[in-house]
Amino acid sequence: MRATYMYGAGDVRVVDVPDPVIQQPTDAVVRVVRSCVCGSDLHPYHNLPDTPGGKTMGHEFVGVVEDVGRDVSALRKGDFVIAPFAWSDGTCDFCREDLQTSCRHGGFWNANGVDGGQAEAVRVPQADGTLVKVPGGADPALLPSLLTLSDVYGTGYHAALKGGVSAKTTVTVIGDGAVGLLAVLAARQFGAERIILMGRHKDRTDLGVEYGATDVVAERGAEGIEKVRGLTGGDGTHVVLEAVGHMPAYEQAFGVVRAGGVISRVGVPQYDEAPIGFGTLFGPNVTLTGGPAPARAYTGRWTTALR
Amino acid sequence: MRATYMYGAGDVRVVDVPDPVIQQPTDAVVRVVRSCVCGSDLHPYHNLPDTPGGKTMGHEFVGVVEDVGRDVSALRKGDFVIAPFAWSDGTCDFCREDLQTSCRHGGFWNANGVDGGQAEAVRVPQADGTLVKVPGGADPALLPSLLTLSDVYGTGYHAALKGGVSAKTTVTVIGDGAVGLLAVLAARQFGAERIILMGRHKDRTDLGVEYGATDVVAERGAEGIEKVRGLTGGDGTHVVLEAVGHMPAYEQAFGVVRAGGVISRVGVPQYDEAPIGFGTLFGPNVTLTGGPAPARAYTGRWTTALR
Repeated sequence: MRATYMYGAGDVRVVDVPDPVIQQPTDAVVRVVRSCVCGSDLHPYHNLPDTPGGKTMGHEFVGVVEDVGRDVSALRKGDFVIAPFAWSDGTCDFCREDLQTSCRHGGFWNANGVDGGQAEAVRVPQADGTLVKVPGGADPALLPSLLTLSDVYGTGYHAALKGGVSAKTTVTVIGDGAVGLLAVLAARQFGAERIILMGRHKDRTDLGVEYGATDVVAERGAEGIEKVRGLTGGDGTHVVLEAVGHMPAYEQAFGVVRAGGVISRVGVPQYDEAPIGFGTLFGPNVTLTGGPAPARAYTGRWTTALR
Repeated sequence: MRATYMYGAGDVRVVDVPDPVIQQPTDAVVRVVRSCVCGSDLHPYHNLPDTPGGKTMGHEFVGVVEDVGRDVSALRKGDFVIAPFAWSDGTCDFCREDLQTSCRHGGFWNANGVDGGQAEAVRVPQADGTLVKVPGGADPALLPSLLTLSDVYGTGYHAALKGGVSAKTTVTVIGDGAVGLLAVLAARQFGAERIILMGRHKDRTDLGVEYGATDVVAERGAEGIEKVRGLTGGDGTHVVLEAVGHMPAYEQAFGVVRAGGVISRVGVPQYDEAPIGFGTLFGPNVTLTGGPAPARAYTGRWTTALR
């Protein structure tokens, strides 16, 4: 089959590789129908050191079950499934607590012998726990929408949920990529009436306005912070959803959060150390939360609601 | 009157200074009956640069109202009061949200012309908002207990409250100072059944056990983390209450927190930058919260309950 491999910064190739096969009795093989390039793929695209053997890519896909191992009971050949961006057993205590990204027997795609979703087919470990079956199969017109449940919508939703967004909170969303825009949508669904979207791509921020953003701030850095503060009587917003992952976005976040508020990060941080002292988080009692979304939990609920 | 001033690291003197007087119509003057040395006083005691004019000290005190400005309505001369470690107007939106440490017209002691509580008397700004009257006056036997409501108990309580401690959570408390021990007490009051206290002063950790700690870990660093992990099946605890403020305590905190858990800091951080990337907070969806406790809110509730 063909699969996408990355060999270094900017060096992406479609190569021929052996078809995936069942290795464990809990595996499934899924034929990929639609797959995504994620904002987080841009990080290795910019920074991956030379990797002669190549690195498999992709962690968001939907497709059709082609084969299942003998211990797979919830899925059959022909089922249409959504794969979340982490695989998980669905039975451990973390999975039962809806923190599938910390599953005791799970992991992320493109690591430890598990390949990626930017390929014609994928071996899926812990298939019963990982895959979400779409009841009644997939309407082709819905494929792009279903694909958002693999990562970006669950991630935007996770940001808003962990941030405690409600009708009582004002919200700033940092980033106008797919996750940022779906964080706007989720914030609106959680009832927020004031949603400030920080982004500078007009076509995207226009979509953000359609999704519920009430204000758009194109400026960045000190100027962007000033603008958001100006829109909020100098205070900033109760919740900030950070959907980028670079340090300037984090600096933006603590610059526009209201005292007592919450910064909820879902952009994968491209930094390790960052300011969290008296002047940034501690003094104003700001909470920092977020992480990789348990998309499996959210998508499982939403598709159950479709039945 | 006599007051305590610090002139540099290790250089503390009791000096004669003018008695405080009403400056604003919202001021009161309080004669100090009991005052504390706080763990956070140790930071300037170790690090204060030479300060020829001296620095007033103290932010935890109880005492008797000696004089009030003409706009003070809730207090009278002779009232016994508890002063929280921040002063606040009691009327702004932050105060009404119980975040008095971010009061729009408030501040901290020993700054901006407001002196400290390690003195025979203190001018208290925004007296109606700041001071908590003890109904019926103070039983002398209760003075040390009432003094804990000025800072350390409210701070331990804040740690547990912001950390979301409940009967369902396991807890690690880092630090066996007054705040750490009262964080143990608060955690127990919030219903936690497993409370691991990290501290190496046996007299203090013994008191911690009396307050509700179920385990004591005297080891620090990697060894301490290992020990807590060993006590929790390798996972760490749902909540970590960090009551120290030095970097090793923060490192301890992310070393012993369970995935999906909360680190609640109340030790004033003596660092600015710290690890918050994928490997520490983000990957395991750990929440970082805490800050200066709105002791005014908690103490106000507790003393109202005494009426």
